[in-house]
Amino acid sequence: MVSYIGVSDIQRLVASMGAAAFIERLAAEIEADYRRWGEFEKSARLASHSKVGVIELMPTSDGQYYSFKYVNGHPKNTAEGLLTVTAFGVLADVHTGYPLLLSELTVTTALRTAAMSALAARWLARPESRVMALIGNGAQSEFQAIAFRGMLGIEQLRLYDVDAAASAKLERNLRLLPDFADVEIVRARSASEACKAADIITTVTADKKNAVILTPPMVRAGQHINAVGGDCPGKTELHADVLHMPGVRVVVEYEPQSRIEGEIQQVDADYPVTEFAALVSGAAAGRSSASDITIFDSVGFALEDYSALRFLHKLLEEDRANGRQIDLVPQLADPKDLYGGTLGGSPRSRMRLTG
Amino acid sequence: MVSYIGVSDIQRLVASMGAAAFIERLAAEIEADYRRWGEFEKSARLASHSKVGVIELMPTSDGQYYSFKYVNGHPKNTAEGLLTVTAFGVLADVHTGYPLLLSELTVTTALRTAAMSALAARWLARPESRVMALIGNGAQSEFQAIAFRGMLGIEQLRLYDVDAAASAKLERNLRLLPDFADVEIVRARSASEACKAADIITTVTADKKNAVILTPPMVRAGQHINAVGGDCPGKTELHADVLHMPGVRVVVEYEPQSRIEGEIQQVDADYPVTEFAALVSGAAAGRSSASDITIFDSVGFALEDYSALRFLHKLLEEDRANGRQIDLVPQLADPKDLYGGTLGGSPRSRMRLTG
Repeated sequence: MVSYIGVSDIQRLVASMGAAAFIERLAAEIEADYRRWGEFEKSARLASHSKVGVIELMPTSDGQYYSFKYVNGHPKNTAEGLLTVTAFGVLADVHTGYPLLLSELTVTTALRTAAMSALAARWLARPESRVMALIGNGAQSEFQAIAFRGMLGIEQLRLYDVDAAASAKLERNLRLLPDFADVEIVRARSASEACKAADIITTVTADKKNAVILTPPMVRAGQHINAVGGDCPGKTELHADVLHMPGVRVVVEYEPQSRIEGEIQQVDADYPVTEFAALVSGAAAGRSSASDITIFDSVGFALEDYSALRFLHKLLEEDRANGRQIDLVPQLADPKDLYGGTLGGSPRSRMRLTG
Repeated sequence: MVSYIGVSDIQRLVASMGAAAFIERLAAEIEADYRRWGEFEKSARLASHSKVGVIELMPTSDGQYYSFKYVNGHPKNTAEGLLTVTAFGVLADVHTGYPLLLSELTVTTALRTAAMSALAARWLARPESRVMALIGNGAQSEFQAIAFRGMLGIEQLRLYDVDAAASAKLERNLRLLPDFADVEIVRARSASEACKAADIITTVTADKKNAVILTPPMVRAGQHINAVGGDCPGKTELHADVLHMPGVRVVVEYEPQSRIEGEIQQVDADYPVTEFAALVSGAAAGRSSASDITIFDSVGFALEDYSALRFLHKLLEEDRANGRQIDLVPQLADPKDLYGGTLGGSPRSRMRLTG
């Protein structure tokens, strides 16, 4: 049998632990996995593009476990009452090839993306950062707010979205959280106004196009930019000139993938970037001075989903999460007798089927 | 909600329809899909190799539906009481990116592989073929026997396996089937003996190595070879000289993948092969004379899994199959409020969660 974590299971699990604590623990898992970056089999995601969106498979393996995520991106879905992004994934045992865990990853991806964003900001933002602009107040925005409140101690959030109802929804959701009692939430009238006085600028917009959310006049020395929404070919959030501002240092997850999907798809192939793994291993420095403009050009890498699936699997193993069992794979008394054990054979062999 | 077909569901479904009828209907779906070959997005599978096996993802899309299969190949698994090959897959809606159906594909892959083998043999074997050698009597063998009995009217089966218990198991399972009442089942003492007087030779062995199951002295003019077991780099069943025998015509599923994974990995890149789609479209001929040696160099292509998943999904839509529903994807009242609809938000927004 294969363990299964559905939407209702992840709801119970995160409710029992608290979203901020879940994100912080997951960030620690992600960081630990980035420390052993060399052990992972890495490839750019396998994308199937259509006019309205993209469906991607994101596999990786560390030689002990294999994982993949299925994820779609369909910006126009919300008009039909559907999510822009849905996802699920599987953790498997490399030794046997058997799947171990099938999990929803729609909610979990939002949690891991926020965990990765806040983790990168811990390495890149000025330590005294307390004000964050949050541009794009859709499905991912609460997760980003919770992660940065919990992991960086953000005290002021400056919200902006072209859809005012989205900002109202975000503020309403955050106001219900005790962690946000002391957080000042400002509703800005423009992205430019949101960025004013921000230590960190998080962009998490969803249009499938080369959007220009940030231009050089909106960016100041010392800021950290957490660019989450630009994550596939033709989908960016920063004006290319931002990448050429003095003091800019760009950190990516996996360079070959980010060259295709990230903000750096807008610049030459020799534009210098640093992989996040090089920061955590000490091979490269992040911010070199308080006036650097650091940019985490986030597109999401398979390792982070591996970390999330491993984390969920550990929680199941420790009986700290409720999972269910599904008969996705046959369990046979005689593995050479697939037919007899499932469809035919003698009543005796079929009786021994337990899958 | 996403439809789910587990092992117990596929057992009930195939039992209600009969394995031979299921295979024949599935073969018709596969053939219909090969007729519109140009509509499919094609890529070689994405493989993750380890010392003991391989885990692969096989995606495709026709612009309306997207599908992928997860499949492993671990020849040593049987020593641990586990299956060599397990699989599952997903059918998704390209328009929304949402998964529609998650299905077991361990049993279904065996059915679709057999359906594809018999379908190719219908196009390639001499019409009067009635005797089949079946070399390799493991997990896939019953499915091959049932498919060739049903779709080609095989009257004599000549079994061989290095493990005599495997042949005994195969014969025992087949003897229970009414369709095999009039089929002569011969247990050969060698692969060579099995091939004698055979019109069709099916090789379906599992060792992950360049094995030599068939050599030129075992092959005669007019035979059709259904080479199923050689299906990844370093895993072949035919001596390379068989591919150079006079009158040999090799048919593959998707040439770029077969050059890497098929028997033709042993020959030069300019060795002539014909894609199966070219046969069904009439663009190329299969067998040109009764003395040709036709070889279906089968490795399994994503289109065939697409066909299987679409077939299962149609059966569910027609209420001809029992499926279950799983909460793999959230259903939200407000798709822009992932957080509020799942983890937090007001009691009112959470109450509307239906996923």
